[in-house]
Amino acid sequence: MNTKEKLKKLYETMDLAEKYYHAVGLINFDLETISPENAKEEQGEVINFLSNEAFKLTNSEEYNSLIVDLYNSREDLDPLDKVMIEKKYDNYLKIKNITPEFALYMDRVYTKSFLNWLKAKEAADFSVFRDSLAEVIELEKKTISLRENKLPDAYDNLLNDCEKGMLTEQLDSFFGELKAGLLEIMNKINKSKHVIRDDFLTRKVPLHKQEIMSKYLLELNGYDFKKGVLAESEHPFTSDIAKNDARLTTHYHEDMVLSNIFSVIHEGGHGIFMQNEREEDYEHHINDSITNGMHESVSRFYENVIGRSKEYVHLIYPKFMELFSEELGDVSERELYEALNIVKPSLIRTEADEVTYGLHVIIRYEMEKMIMHDEIKVDDIPKMWNRLYKEYLGIEPSNDREGVLQDMHWSSGFGYFPSYAMGNSYNAMYVRKMKEEIDFEGAVSRGEMNIIKEWLKDNVFSHANVFTPDEWIREITGESLTPKYFLEYLNKKYSEIYEF
Amino acid sequence: MNTKEKLKKLYETMDLAEKYYHAVGLINFDLETISPENAKEEQGEVINFLSNEAFKLTNSEEYNSLIVDLYNSREDLDPLDKVMIEKKYDNYLKIKNITPEFALYMDRVYTKSFLNWLKAKEAADFSVFRDSLAEVIELEKKTISLRENKLPDAYDNLLNDCEKGMLTEQLDSFFGELKAGLLEIMNKINKSKHVIRDDFLTRKVPLHKQEIMSKYLLELNGYDFKKGVLAESEHPFTSDIAKNDARLTTHYHEDMVLSNIFSVIHEGGHGIFMQNEREEDYEHHINDSITNGMHESVSRFYENVIGRSKEYVHLIYPKFMELFSEELGDVSERELYEALNIVKPSLIRTEADEVTYGLHVIIRYEMEKMIMHDEIKVDDIPKMWNRLYKEYLGIEPSNDREGVLQDMHWSSGFGYFPSYAMGNSYNAMYVRKMKEEIDFEGAVSRGEMNIIKEWLKDNVFSHANVFTPDEWIREITGESLTPKYFLEYLNKKYSEIYEF
Repeated sequence: MNTKEKLKKLYETMDLAEKYYHAVGLINFDLETISPENAKEEQGEVINFLSNEAFKLTNSEEYNSLIVDLYNSREDLDPLDKVMIEKKYDNYLKIKNITPEFALYMDRVYTKSFLNWLKAKEAADFSVFRDSLAEVIELEKKTISLRENKLPDAYDNLLNDCEKGMLTEQLDSFFGELKAGLLEIMNKINKSKHVIRDDFLTRKVPLHKQEIMSKYLLELNGYDFKKGVLAESEHPFTSDIAKNDARLTTHYHEDMVLSNIFSVIHEGGHGIFMQNEREEDYEHHINDSITNGMHESVSRFYENVIGRSKEYVHLIYPKFMELFSEELGDVSERELYEALNIVKPSLIRTEADEVTYGLHVIIRYEMEKMIMHDEIKVDDIPKMWNRLYKEYLGIEPSNDREGVLQDMHWSSGFGYFPSYAMGNSYNAMYVRKMKEEIDFEGAVSRGEMNIIKEWLKDNVFSHANVFTPDEWIREITGESLTPKYFLEYLNKKYSEIYEF
Repeated sequence: MNTKEKLKKLYETMDLAEKYYHAVGLINFDLETISPENAKEEQGEVINFLSNEAFKLTNSEEYNSLIVDLYNSREDLDPLDKVMIEKKYDNYLKIKNITPEFALYMDRVYTKSFLNWLKAKEAADFSVFRDSLAEVIELEKKTISLRENKLPDAYDNLLNDCEKGMLTEQLDSFFGELKAGLLEIMNKINKSKHVIRDDFLTRKVPLHKQEIMSKYLLELNGYDFKKGVLAESEHPFTSDIAKNDARLTTHYHEDMVLSNIFSVIHEGGHGIFMQNEREEDYEHHINDSITNGMHESVSRFYENVIGRSKEYVHLIYPKFMELFSEELGDVSERELYEALNIVKPSLIRTEADEVTYGLHVIIRYEMEKMIMHDEIKVDDIPKMWNRLYKEYLGIEPSNDREGVLQDMHWSSGFGYFPSYAMGNSYNAMYVRKMKEEIDFEGAVSRGEMNIIKEWLKDNVFSHANVFTPDEWIREITGESLTPKYFLEYLNKKYSEIYEF
């Protein structure tokens, strides 16, 4: 076979594997949204079976020799083919020593671990999850040891998977600066005498009204329902199922109407990103290259920079009153704006405000380092969690459900959390640029959300699959990742609200 | 390999194929319920791909030789293994000459045909569907010609697929008797002076209230939400996805609250049947052997015999008033009972009453015979449809949407419709037996629906996968299919309502 034929063969195999992954995506979405209780276990087995068929296709001897050959002649390839082969070669080095049997074993460990985490969270009892967590830690170490392209530091491998090139050295300094800045703002807010009205936040709002609001907000922000759906799951998430299928979920709470609203705006941000990837990225099978940090920059941009802005509250207030006047008719526009920007240490990351949020992430980052560096025993994890919450946020969980068991992430490994905090800093960096080029506040006030989406498309979404995070943020802003502008943004916004 | 080893190998392959079919079931359910518009085409390709993988597994040379060998030594097998191999051998004769390529071609024709039917229905224009329908007719004939076990009459093959052993000869006499009886009842009703109040049937009822009602009715009837879900689709259906996953859909219309209620009760009947199949039928891979007629007997039993009875209306009336008092507070229990039993010729089968329903089916049966016997040209199908409606029901569709395009069935072949009418007659036969053994009216009035479900489980559900329809109905009632008791039931019920 010549290079062209090899390339053709490779794409054919990837197309085939993609059919399996498409199926897995759909079945997994079903599992998390509507699959009935007694059906879940068997459905999990179907997912593992299909994933394994795809794994076999893309880790066969024949496939791997195509990868190696094409990598060796990558300089002769078209630019996007070259990007593709570099990414696939990287992945090949990572997984070539994993047999299909071991891959299936891994899938089963993760499935079991996820189910045990669910049970443990429900029972608010870490001991139910303990053995699975220990297994996951062992598995992370084992799979790192099998890599051909491993980095010397165990945790760096996991960080690198999530955010290529962002390793502990850079993150330690990033988080150090971020932490100092956040604590400073916290201090100012703590001293503030300004009181924000919050009595209405737990009033009951019927779910069918919340559903209408959700759909309204997503359409307003530019999410395209012809290429996605909104469903309900225990924990909100977005799933990139296929080129024309970027799906969102939320969770409705009758007595927490804002929780759903901000989940929907957040996940909608992920969805808008996915719906605006370039056609050719799909054709070249590099469409899954956007890092978590890039993704979170967009979702948290929609959630916070837009969603919690005065202009956006002004924009949606009439709809808010139209739908919720019976329950929330006595809340003024300013009261609503302030209430959804209350800063207050809390135990649950996903419900945290913009200022304390980063501290939740830093706690997890610190702990993941300890875990991957063997500096902590599995049994001591809950204690350490509680100690760090006390130290960083001044409050302590009363049980494991509101402590170490709150997030599902550790049931499938480590390295994701830092992305959340990077996301905030990335968007603060590129929003400065955006504001130089378009009338951001004006566009939001007038509901011209398309202007914003188009700017993101031209500047943020394009090339996201091609660049590393550092290349990407430098291309947009000329600078490498820094928390400086995010801290500036917080200071400006909250000094106005809390009058400091 | 000895017989035991061959059997083991066969079951292993079927288990594997079942994983694909499980996936296909889930993805298809998704396609019909929530899949976004622009994603459907690619999702259809995933379904076809996975189906074809399963087809290859269960029509390979190796697999087929296991089937033949085990069939030849079937007398040595355990009873359920013997049943299984007889069914699989039958299927082997049917499909052995179909190549995977041809199977994939078929899947694609059906997918395209379904989409063209959708478009045609929306446009109310038969010509949009015409070529696809012609293709489907050709394909039916072609696949029949490829069968090793074909029957001489083309249409008999299709009837036999749906309802083993029920061929045109028997059905001609069954439908002849049924038609005469139905027309006689229609005549009596036409002469009746009794007026039924129907002004409230099109009042608007908010969808979220209808959703609550749906869930209430399903739980009341004994549908188990731990082993199933209720979703929404364009056309209500039930899908047997896996042992612990029997899913239902409905369609909510704001101005047709009864339409949803009876869809839900009907599909719930299918679901209850599926949820109560014997565990060992799944283990032996014969769980899909229940015929459409058997299935419809149960769904139409729940929908009509229970759902439209005085006792059931009495049972659910308080919940009806609790939920819908704002919209339907002025409707008495008797008025509700009569309104949901109005007999009146209409154009749409799925909205038809118990009496005229059979005529809708007979029209389709007559036309399917003509089509498969080459007695009608494709272009003449809409005209013939309208002529028969005029002749049997005295009314004529004003366009193809309310005429020949109303049902999706013909986009995937012929032979299903007769089952609907058989279902009514089957249940009228076994309900007589049921009433001898349990206090049916008392159980319904008191909401003791479990007594009914248990009776069905012991008498109707058990062995349904093992027997042919005739063996099954004779085992329950001692008689072969007859419309006699169904006509008796209609006469008794409607003479009370229409005072004849």
